[in-house]
Amino acid sequence: MSVKPPKQIEHIGIAVKDLEKSVQFYTEFIGLTCVGYETVESEKVRVAFLEIGETRLELLEATSEDSPIAQFIEKKGEGIHHIALQIDNSVKRLEFLKEQGVKLINEVPKQGAHGNLVAFLHPKSTNGVLLELCQPKGK
Amino acid sequence: MSVKPPKQIEHIGIAVKDLEKSVQFYTEFIGLTCVGYETVESEKVRVAFLEIGETRLELLEATSEDSPIAQFIEKKGEGIHHIALQIDNSVKRLEFLKEQGVKLINEVPKQGAHGNLVAFLHPKSTNGVLLELCQPKGK
Repeated sequence: MSVKPPKQIEHIGIAVKDLEKSVQFYTEFIGLTCVGYETVESEKVRVAFLEIGETRLELLEATSEDSPIAQFIEKKGEGIHHIALQIDNSVKRLEFLKEQGVKLINEVPKQGAHGNLVAFLHPKSTNGVLLELCQPKGK
Repeated sequence: MSVKPPKQIEHIGIAVKDLEKSVQFYTEFIGLTCVGYETVESEKVRVAFLEIGETRLELLEATSEDSPIAQFIEKKGEGIHHIALQIDNSVKRLEFLKEQGVKLINEVPKQGAHGNLVAFLHPKSTNGVLLELCQPKGK
């Protein structure tokens, strides 16, 4: 299999303690526009979406103490949590990565924000970067 | 001052131990194209640029033990180091941020890769995110 390049950065996820305060910083001081909020029950997060060029910053606030975001902040503090790459055909790509010995957190895609199909690669295989592969809904 | 939105993510900086091995991962397994290398003496780093959509991943390898990247890896391990936002008029924007009480690492811009003018905001003011403001050369 030849590897099709990801189209773009789908979003950059940032773990924050106080969503409203962070949205205020990025809108008032940096000049970004907040285009919406969403609660993703499966990940126990509330998300604010900030547009920038073709991509977005996603500010992630935990909705529960056992949320992956609460655990991340507990361990590492607030900060950049993951980078999501927009791809097609996530199932085939995950199979390819697994064949190559890349460690996967999700071997099959699951549902993320906006109804996208998402899967995470393990930071051990990606220089410490939590990489999300994100296939937009309906593609 | 009303804050002009940043145009796009200029790049995402990722601290890595072994530049060649990381470039191989992102090109062979993820499908990105490496469009060049640069050594930035002032930051004591060697950088590989990987295109994705309108932006780039910058893989950063320390060229010296006292490089900020070596110190980052020593403290936190490999991983996402910073996000750079493409802006105009960095001098005025830094003045505005300072007036608003935002903590700055660089109060005036300095020269970065590609001859861009760059300045970093302090993670204490930005939810733990090392934010770089990047004004392209000649703009």
